[in-house]
Amino acid sequence: MKLQIAKASLLEGIQIVSRAVPSKTTMPILECILIDASGLDIRLIANDMELGIQTLVPGMILEKGIVAIDAQIFANIVRKLPDADVTLTVTGEKVQINCQKARFNIPGHDGSDFVYLPAVERKEEIRITQYSLREMINRTIFSISGNETSGMMTGELMEIRGNTMRIVALDGHRIAIRNVELNESYEDRKAIIPGKALNEISKILSGDTEKMVSIFFTDRHVLFSFEDTIVVSRLMEGEYYRIDRMLSTSYVTRFSVQRKELLSCIDRATLLVKEEDKKPVILMITDETVELKINTAMGSLDEVIEITKEGPDLNIGFNPRFLIDALRATDDDEITLYLVSAKAPCFIRDEAGRYCYLVLPVNFITID
Amino acid sequence: MKLQIAKASLLEGIQIVSRAVPSKTTMPILECILIDASGLDIRLIANDMELGIQTLVPGMILEKGIVAIDAQIFANIVRKLPDADVTLTVTGEKVQINCQKARFNIPGHDGSDFVYLPAVERKEEIRITQYSLREMINRTIFSISGNETSGMMTGELMEIRGNTMRIVALDGHRIAIRNVELNESYEDRKAIIPGKALNEISKILSGDTEKMVSIFFTDRHVLFSFEDTIVVSRLMEGEYYRIDRMLSTSYVTRFSVQRKELLSCIDRATLLVKEEDKKPVILMITDETVELKINTAMGSLDEVIEITKEGPDLNIGFNPRFLIDALRATDDDEITLYLVSAKAPCFIRDEAGRYCYLVLPVNFITID
Repeated sequence: MKLQIAKASLLEGIQIVSRAVPSKTTMPILECILIDASGLDIRLIANDMELGIQTLVPGMILEKGIVAIDAQIFANIVRKLPDADVTLTVTGEKVQINCQKARFNIPGHDGSDFVYLPAVERKEEIRITQYSLREMINRTIFSISGNETSGMMTGELMEIRGNTMRIVALDGHRIAIRNVELNESYEDRKAIIPGKALNEISKILSGDTEKMVSIFFTDRHVLFSFEDTIVVSRLMEGEYYRIDRMLSTSYVTRFSVQRKELLSCIDRATLLVKEEDKKPVILMITDETVELKINTAMGSLDEVIEITKEGPDLNIGFNPRFLIDALRATDDDEITLYLVSAKAPCFIRDEAGRYCYLVLPVNFITID
Repeated sequence: MKLQIAKASLLEGIQIVSRAVPSKTTMPILECILIDASGLDIRLIANDMELGIQTLVPGMILEKGIVAIDAQIFANIVRKLPDADVTLTVTGEKVQINCQKARFNIPGHDGSDFVYLPAVERKEEIRITQYSLREMINRTIFSISGNETSGMMTGELMEIRGNTMRIVALDGHRIAIRNVELNESYEDRKAIIPGKALNEISKILSGDTEKMVSIFFTDRHVLFSFEDTIVVSRLMEGEYYRIDRMLSTSYVTRFSVQRKELLSCIDRATLLVKEEDKKPVILMITDETVELKINTAMGSLDEVIEITKEGPDLNIGFNPRFLIDALRATDDDEITLYLVSAKAPCFIRDEAGRYCYLVLPVNFITID
């Protein structure tokens, strides 16, 4: 095999597919990137069996072939090459990487053990902009559970209803929901996609509002196709939580507040909270102000913020981390919190229904 | 005690003195910053018994007093305050920090246990620009030994001879020397300053070519005074290595090379070297080129660079790390390496005598 590829293109390709290279595996071949130049184009592929990524790299095939190269070494070498054309020459299991006067020799592996991406039939295409998909993921993914044993909570629900796409993430203490209107209507469909796959895909998406992503579902897989890249992820099996019954639009008290002001105040409060202790931040909501209080072994903080309120006064406690995550997930200058009681969930949502963040309160002992 | 200080000034002061706060100590009071406002100015002080830093902070003393506050908590809180005036109020051992509508309460400590900086008599002042002192440190400090048991190798020699200051660092495998001309002549003097102190001071120095540092030595301490800050470090006891006998100006082969080209080539070679294995990079020096080779379990690299050479051909091996450090420590576009044999030290030095980096070669088995 002999290929000639511009360094920048090769590096970009390696960086894209590397997101599917597992850090630990019992199958060493999966720690490799497969270069498949057996056809008319140069494909880089990586696959950790849950998530697979394939991308095309522009370049010249001087001699066809296939080789697998350790992803880490390959990425490190290419990153440090001069910005010029790179020639890859494979002889048996030896890979020579030439770039200007530098000549690297590293071992290659026979590609025959490598697991290609599963075949996903491309029918019933759903289209969304790269920007929207990335935002939907980034603004919900923090609410999935990081605990690998918590099953479906480690994934996100992606649901299509007519011309709306909804993404839901929850971890038992909070729910994050984002809705976006699509340009066309589609048949209803839903699937649970592993959080890891969504996380990686959100890092590859360009965030361009003009460029589109095509999404295809089968019973067991989802395929995202955009530009020269395809990402295939397994779906999680089972029925997702019935969240609609948890979402209520009725409230007793609601208040509007400058988002950044509330955010930096809660952010300050977290200074006094150590990882392990679960001290809540208390919001004492009165007519024109909310007083935030936190009291830990390290000290206490007390701060007053102006608000616009409707309904009776209320004292309520939250895990400050959860409020911060929800507040960071919107760009609105002013946000509105909807509350029922000190023991009922708090909702942060906009009137247009683009987002809804539910945070469960934390019990707290009355403070003076 | 009651003080009013602009947030930015307070934060800057805390960040300066925090460099002398030990991360681990058997004396908890040393993990504090002392705020001494018992006189006419507001002083922040930290001291780990080897290194002490004191800085003045502009502000208003509404009520005099002294308090010690945990450095970490204090820094974290002040960093996150709004950019406005901060009021510190100490009542007994309670510290209240007010800034706009935020009110923090944290514990304070009685300052009576705190160890102030040792008194250093300010005579025989030596003056150097902040820029020069910082450069002298940054461009030699990588050559000290990181192993705390290696005694004087963990420090740097600072030597004044007439109007020249010389700084020397060595770790048994290499020597780094920087010379700078001072504006005046001083009495000869030398001292060994702990590397840690120099590292910290280099981070506080502004790098301004107009602002000066005053240096004062006693038998046991060195004091650096600049702007509103004083840094006092213990000196290391003993006689420094007699390096002059190790420095020779005779050579057999010398070659000049584009520094950045050589640097990025050796940098690429290190990709193939794991921390633990000590594979040398081999330089095969011929009339118009040097060929760099490295060969490890991960693979091999071979690269050719153009040079201008005098003297016979030579093959020599180096720890690539040491060459990289020395090459990064100068700004010259072209540098010259002076060599005697494959077993003798290599010198990288300039004609003006501003710098001299000595690197010992590594034995290597002849490679094809």
